[in-house]
Amino acid sequence: MKKYLTRSYTDLTKEENFLSETLFHNANGYIGVRGCLEEGVLGGADTMRGTYINGFYDIIPMKQAEMLCNFVDKKETMLNVADTMTVNCVVDGEILDLLTGRVIKHTRTLDMDKGITKREVIWEAPSGKQIEITSVRMTSFEELSLFSIEYTVKALNFEGDIRIISVHNPDVTNYSDPSDPRLAAESMRNLSVKDIYADGASSIAIAETSVSGLRVCSLVHHAFMAFGGASVKDETTDILGKQGVFTGNARLTKGGSVTLEKICLFTDSVRAREPAGRAVRILDTVLSNGLNYYYKKQEAYLTAFWENCEMEIDGDADMNSAVTFNMYELLQSAAKDSYASIAAKGLSGEGYEGHYFWDTETFILPFFTLTNPALSKMLLRYRYSTLEKARENAGLLGHQKGALFPWRTITGTECSGYFVSGSAAYHINADIAYAYVNYYITTGDLDFMREAGMEVLLETSRLWTDLGCYNENGDFVLNVVTGPDEYTCMVNNNYYTNVAAKYNLCWTLKIHRLLKEAGMLGNLDERLGITDEELASFGKAAEAMLLPYDARLGINPQDDSFLSKPVWDLTKTPKDHFPLLLHYHPLHLYRYQVCKQADTVLSYFMFENEQPRDVMMKSYEYYEKITTHDSSLSTCVFSIVASRLGMKEKAYAYFGDSAKLDLLNTHSNSMHGIHTANMGGCYMAIVNGFAGLRVTEEGISLSPSLPKDWNGYKFKFVYRDRRLKVAIDQDAVTVELLTGDDLTIRIFGKQVELTKKQEKRIQMEE
Amino acid sequence: MKKYLTRSYTDLTKEENFLSETLFHNANGYIGVRGCLEEGVLGGADTMRGTYINGFYDIIPMKQAEMLCNFVDKKETMLNVADTMTVNCVVDGEILDLLTGRVIKHTRTLDMDKGITKREVIWEAPSGKQIEITSVRMTSFEELSLFSIEYTVKALNFEGDIRIISVHNPDVTNYSDPSDPRLAAESMRNLSVKDIYADGASSIAIAETSVSGLRVCSLVHHAFMAFGGASVKDETTDILGKQGVFTGNARLTKGGSVTLEKICLFTDSVRAREPAGRAVRILDTVLSNGLNYYYKKQEAYLTAFWENCEMEIDGDADMNSAVTFNMYELLQSAAKDSYASIAAKGLSGEGYEGHYFWDTETFILPFFTLTNPALSKMLLRYRYSTLEKARENAGLLGHQKGALFPWRTITGTECSGYFVSGSAAYHINADIAYAYVNYYITTGDLDFMREAGMEVLLETSRLWTDLGCYNENGDFVLNVVTGPDEYTCMVNNNYYTNVAAKYNLCWTLKIHRLLKEAGMLGNLDERLGITDEELASFGKAAEAMLLPYDARLGINPQDDSFLSKPVWDLTKTPKDHFPLLLHYHPLHLYRYQVCKQADTVLSYFMFENEQPRDVMMKSYEYYEKITTHDSSLSTCVFSIVASRLGMKEKAYAYFGDSAKLDLLNTHSNSMHGIHTANMGGCYMAIVNGFAGLRVTEEGISLSPSLPKDWNGYKFKFVYRDRRLKVAIDQDAVTVELLTGDDLTIRIFGKQVELTKKQEKRIQMEE
Repeated sequence: MKKYLTRSYTDLTKEENFLSETLFHNANGYIGVRGCLEEGVLGGADTMRGTYINGFYDIIPMKQAEMLCNFVDKKETMLNVADTMTVNCVVDGEILDLLTGRVIKHTRTLDMDKGITKREVIWEAPSGKQIEITSVRMTSFEELSLFSIEYTVKALNFEGDIRIISVHNPDVTNYSDPSDPRLAAESMRNLSVKDIYADGASSIAIAETSVSGLRVCSLVHHAFMAFGGASVKDETTDILGKQGVFTGNARLTKGGSVTLEKICLFTDSVRAREPAGRAVRILDTVLSNGLNYYYKKQEAYLTAFWENCEMEIDGDADMNSAVTFNMYELLQSAAKDSYASIAAKGLSGEGYEGHYFWDTETFILPFFTLTNPALSKMLLRYRYSTLEKARENAGLLGHQKGALFPWRTITGTECSGYFVSGSAAYHINADIAYAYVNYYITTGDLDFMREAGMEVLLETSRLWTDLGCYNENGDFVLNVVTGPDEYTCMVNNNYYTNVAAKYNLCWTLKIHRLLKEAGMLGNLDERLGITDEELASFGKAAEAMLLPYDARLGINPQDDSFLSKPVWDLTKTPKDHFPLLLHYHPLHLYRYQVCKQADTVLSYFMFENEQPRDVMMKSYEYYEKITTHDSSLSTCVFSIVASRLGMKEKAYAYFGDSAKLDLLNTHSNSMHGIHTANMGGCYMAIVNGFAGLRVTEEGISLSPSLPKDWNGYKFKFVYRDRRLKVAIDQDAVTVELLTGDDLTIRIFGKQVELTKKQEKRIQMEE
Repeated sequence: MKKYLTRSYTDLTKEENFLSETLFHNANGYIGVRGCLEEGVLGGADTMRGTYINGFYDIIPMKQAEMLCNFVDKKETMLNVADTMTVNCVVDGEILDLLTGRVIKHTRTLDMDKGITKREVIWEAPSGKQIEITSVRMTSFEELSLFSIEYTVKALNFEGDIRIISVHNPDVTNYSDPSDPRLAAESMRNLSVKDIYADGASSIAIAETSVSGLRVCSLVHHAFMAFGGASVKDETTDILGKQGVFTGNARLTKGGSVTLEKICLFTDSVRAREPAGRAVRILDTVLSNGLNYYYKKQEAYLTAFWENCEMEIDGDADMNSAVTFNMYELLQSAAKDSYASIAAKGLSGEGYEGHYFWDTETFILPFFTLTNPALSKMLLRYRYSTLEKARENAGLLGHQKGALFPWRTITGTECSGYFVSGSAAYHINADIAYAYVNYYITTGDLDFMREAGMEVLLETSRLWTDLGCYNENGDFVLNVVTGPDEYTCMVNNNYYTNVAAKYNLCWTLKIHRLLKEAGMLGNLDERLGITDEELASFGKAAEAMLLPYDARLGINPQDDSFLSKPVWDLTKTPKDHFPLLLHYHPLHLYRYQVCKQADTVLSYFMFENEQPRDVMMKSYEYYEKITTHDSSLSTCVFSIVASRLGMKEKAYAYFGDSAKLDLLNTHSNSMHGIHTANMGGCYMAIVNGFAGLRVTEEGISLSPSLPKDWNGYKFKFVYRDRRLKVAIDQDAVTVELLTGDDLTIRIFGKQVELTKKQEKRIQMEE
C-alpha cells in the first residue's frame, strides 16, 4: 500500500498554510526544514520560516522575575540556521504570487515511500499566462547534511521569458510569540554571519552563535536546466549583503520547462571541526553521485524502515494513513548520530525550543526499541552522555548524591524557567531508567547495560534515596515533587513518581545482579563506588516505597492530598477556557482535582503489576472524569490503559483523538510543530493497547482485540534478534516469526511455540 | 532622658559608612533622605545615595522566565527622586576629602528629641589647615515637603578663602545589586528631567517617570551667611546641564564661619496637580517662617510623640537607646497622609523596592494603634483605598468573589514576581483584617468600621469562603497556600493561615452585629450585597475551620504534611550557609522541617485563645528547634510568645536579638534600609511580651514580668480615649490613668479600678 499524505488547496487560507509548514516539513533527524512556500510568505500570514539542526543551539538569558538561589537563568534554544528554501520566478515580468492571478491547482504531497515532499501549483498570471510549478524536496537519510529542492517551471499556454531567483539567507532569526508560554517570547539575533562567499555555482556561509560559540555552515549549489524546447539564457550566483542570490534567465516555449536543482548542505561545529571544509567535501561527493543517487538511497532506506515497523490497518484507510504518518514523523525527528535526541516537536518547528523532555524516553523510545533498537541505543547513549550534567543539576537542587536529569534540555543542562512544573518533575529520572530497562528487556543487550545502563540506574537510584526518607510508619516517601500531571505541582508522594522510582530502584539491583551473574561487572563496583550497603538501601527503599491508596474509593490517589481537594467542574468550564493553563493561574489549578494529562493512569500501563485490576479500573474511571487532556501526552495513554482494562470502545475513541492530533490540528498548535510524544503514544495504543503486547522479563505476550470499525490490522516488531509479524482480524490472531531463533510466546495467556516462517493462528477471544 | 544615637568614626570604614547612611537617614513619612556624606561617595565605597517619596513610584517590567497565565510581569518600584544633599567645600584650593588630609573628629548624631541629625567633622587639609564642618539635617514633620541642611564651615587655625559648592541633581537612578534577590537587579533610568531652571536663589526641577507618568518637583533654595568676622564674597545659582549648582565664595578669618542653609522641597503629582507651583508656594511659607520655626515645630511634634509612647528602661541604657531608636524610626517611616503606607524598609533605603507587605499591619500598626490611633486609622484607610485592586487581584488568581490583598505593593497592585512565596501568602488578607479588628478593639471606633472596616472584613471573608472548601470530615480546609514561613510553600491547611482566617470570618460577623446593634448599618447590607445566607456561610466556615493538631506530639503542625518531612539538621549546616535562602534552592528547603521565621508560633500571640497552654508550649519548643530566624520578623515573635508562656530568659534573649538588629546590622543588610517590622515587633516584645498587655473585647489586662538585667521599665499607651502609664519594677507594677474616664483593668488576673491621676500599685508575681 502506498504511503502518502496529500492535501489540495483550492483557496489556501493563512491557517492552512501555517499548518502545512509543519505537516510537509522535511527532516532526517539531523536537519529539519519547514514546509514553507518557496516563494515566501503568503501576504501577511503567520509563518515560521525555519531550518533547524538537531542539537545545534545558542544559550540565551532567561531572566527570573525574582532570582532565588540556583534558579535557572539561561537556557539553550534550537536555532533557525539559514533559509535555503526560497525560490521564486518571474514570468514575463509578472512575479509568482498566489494572492494575485489565479491558482488553478495547488497540491502538496508527502511521499513516505520515497521520502520526499512534492508541491504542485498551476498558476495563471493576471495576464492569463499559465505556469505549472513542481517542487520536490528531500532531506536525505543517506547524507544527513543534504537538503535538496528540485524546482521546475513549465509554460502551459504561452511562450515567454522566465526568471528564477533563488536565495540563500544565513542571516535569520527565530520565530517568536510573546503571548504563548510554549514558544520563545522574544526574537533574538543569535546567529551572526561571519563569512559568506560565492564559489562557482555555490554560495557558502559561516555563521556563529552569540553565546554558545557554535558555528554552522550552510552551502547552496545551483544547477539550472531547460527541457522540452526551453533554453537557458544566463545564470549568475552573487553575494548581496549577507545573502547568496542565484538568478537564472531562460526562454520558455509552450510545454517547455526549466528546473533549478538546489543542493543545500548543512554542517556544524558540534560535529565537525571545520564545518565549511566538511560542507565542501560533501558537495563534491553529492555532485559526483548526482541527486538521483540520493533519491534511490532514500527509497531504499525507507523500504528497510517500513520492513521493520510496517503497520497496516484494514478497513480504515484514514486511520491507516494517520498511523503511517506518525511513524514517519518519528523517523524524521530522531537523531541519527549521538550528538542529539528527539525534541518535543522533532525538527518540524520551534515549539518548546527544540528541547528534549521525558517525551523521548517515555513515549517515543518504545517505538524505536520495538522496531529499530540500534537507534534506541544511540538515543539512550546520548542521554548517558549528559549524566555528568545531571549530577551537577542534582547538586544545584541540594542533593548530596546521585543525578537528576533536567526537565527540558538540549545538552543536558536544565533549561526550565519555572521549576515548579519543571525541575520538580523528578519522575523524569525514573522515565529514563525505565527506557534503559525496557531496551534491555526487549533486546537482551547486557553489554549496553554494563557500558551505560548500570551507571544511569545507579545514579538515578542514588537520587531517589537522597530525595526520599522514611516516615514514622516506616514508609519510604518522596516529598515536594511534581508528577506528570502539571495541573498539580509540588506534592508529596505522587503515585506515578513513587511507583516509577520503585521500579527504578528494583531494576538497579536486577541489572547489577545480572551483570554479576554474567561475570560482566568488571571494575564497575569500584569505578562507581557501589557497595553492598548501598544496594541494600535501594532494596529497602523500594520495598518500603509508599504507594498511595484510598480504601474508601478503592483507587490510587494521585498524591497524598489530591483527594482532599475539590473536584473541578469541567461541565461548567466554558469551551473556550481550554486548555486551562492558558486561562487560569497555576495557583488556582493546583487547588483542584483536575488533570492536564494521564498521571496515575500512565503508571497502570508502565507498572501494571503494582495494582490489582479493580483498583486500576476504579482509578481509571475516577481520573477519566477529571482529566482535560490539555496535554498531547494524555489520550494515547488513556487509550492503552482502556485496552488493557477491556474497555474497547473507549480505547478506540481515545486512540482516534491521538492518531490525528497533528493532521487535524486538534490542539491548535501543530503549526508550531508536530507532537512527537503523542505519535509514539499512538503507536503504543495499537501495539501495546489493541494488540496487548507485553514485553517483560518472562517474555512476550499478546492479548489482541480488534476495534470494531476495522477489518483487521498487522504490525511487525523485533525482539531479541528476532523479527515477528502479527496480524489480527475478526477471527484470529496470526503470528509469524520472520527471522531468528524459535521462540515461545503467550497469546491470550496460552503458550504458543513459534518456529521460523511458520504462521500460528490463534482464535480471537472476547 | 535625652534621646539620641551617636557614633564617632576615627577611621571610617566603607561598611560603617554604608550602614550609617541608613542609621542616620532623615524621614518624615513623606520624604526620606539617606544619611550619605554631603561631599559625595567615599572613594570606591558602596553607597545608596537616595532620596525617596513615599508612594511615588514607577512601573518597571518584571520578565518571567516562563510566562504562565496571569503571572505578574511588571512591578511598582520606589524611586530615588533627586539628590539635594550634596555640598562640598574647597579650602584655599584644597577640596574636602576624608581620604586625604587627616580626620581629627567625625561624629554623627541622631537627636530624637529635636528630630534632626547632626554631623561634625574636624578635618585637617594636607596643608595643615583645619576646618570644622557641622551639618544639621531635618525632614520636617510640620512641613512634609521640607528637607533642610544647615552646612557650616569654620576655620580653626587659619585665615583663607572658602568655596562652598552645593548641588541639586534631579537626574538620578536607583541603586541595584543583581546578586541579591531582595534588591532591584537592574538600575534603570525611570525618571527623566523635563525641566530645570533657576529662580533667584532657587533651582527648580521637574522630572517625570517613564511608565507611571508621575511627576516630581524638587526645589532647592540656598542662603549663604558669614559669621564671626568671615565675609561672603559672592554667590551664584546656575543650571549646568540637568543640575542646579550653587557656588558661594567667602573669606574666613580664624574662628570665623560660613553657613549654607539649603532648603529642599519635594512635591509630587500623586498629591498635587501642579507640583512645581505647590513647591514654590511652600517655599514662600518656609522662607517667611524661617528655618528656626520648623526646628521648634519639630521639637514640639516629637515632644507630643514621646508623650504618647515614651518607653523607658531602667538599668540598661543600651537597650533603652535601641528601643527609643526603633520607635523613632517607625515614626519616620509611617506615611502622614493617606497616599502611602509604611514600607518594609521605611524611607531609609531601597531594599524591597519601597513595597508594603503584611509587615505594616501585623508588626507595625499595633505600635501606632496603641500610641497614635489616628495614624493607624490613616494607614488602614490607605489599605482600604486599594480594595478594588485587591478584588482584581483575586480575580487574576481565579477567585469568583472577594478580595485578595497583594503580597507586596505600592498602589495595591501585586508586585510579587515569585508567586509561590508571594501571591500564595493568602494570610495577608487575615493580617489586614486583624489590624482593623485590633484598631477597633483598642479605639472603639465603630464609625471607621462602618466607613471601611466592614467592607474589608467582608471582602476578605468572601475570599476565604471562595478559597476554601469542606473536606469529607466536614472540616473547612484551605489548600495550596503559603504561610508566613517562606521555607515551606504551597501547602494545605497552614495552621497560621487557617486560624487567622477563622478570626477574620468571626470578626466579620461580630462587626456586622455591632453595627446592627448600634443602628449604624445604614444601607451597608444593600451596598455590599450582604445577605443572611452569606453571613451564615462565614460562621459555618469559621466553626468548621480545620486547625491542624498532632496528638502524638501534642503540637499544631505548621500544615497538613509538615511533620511528615524530615527535620533539617541545623547543627550540621555551615555557619556561612545562613540565611538558607541564599544557599539552597527553594525546592530543597520546601522538603524539610525548617522555618525561616515564626509561623505557628506567631499565631499563639495573635490568636492565643485557640489552643491550650500546653499545646502552645510544646509547639513553641518544637518550632524553636527548627527555626533559623533568617527573617527579621522572627525573633521578636519568639520573644513575645516566650514571655506569654513564662519563659523569661528566652524572651529576653530573643528580644535582645530583635532590639539591636539594625544598630548592630545583625542581618548584614541594614545598609539597604532599616527593618521596620522588626522594630514594631521589638515594641510588642516589651509591651505585649514582658508587660503582658492584652487588649481584647473584654478590656485590658496586664501580667508583667521584669527582665532580670533591668531595674524596671515604663511605657504609655492609649486605649479608648484614655491615656495610661505603666511602670514595672522588681516589686510592683504601677498603673496610672493619665487622662480619660475611669477604667477597670486586670492585672495578674485581678480586677483593678483605675481613676484619673491615681496610681495603682500591684505587687509583682512570679
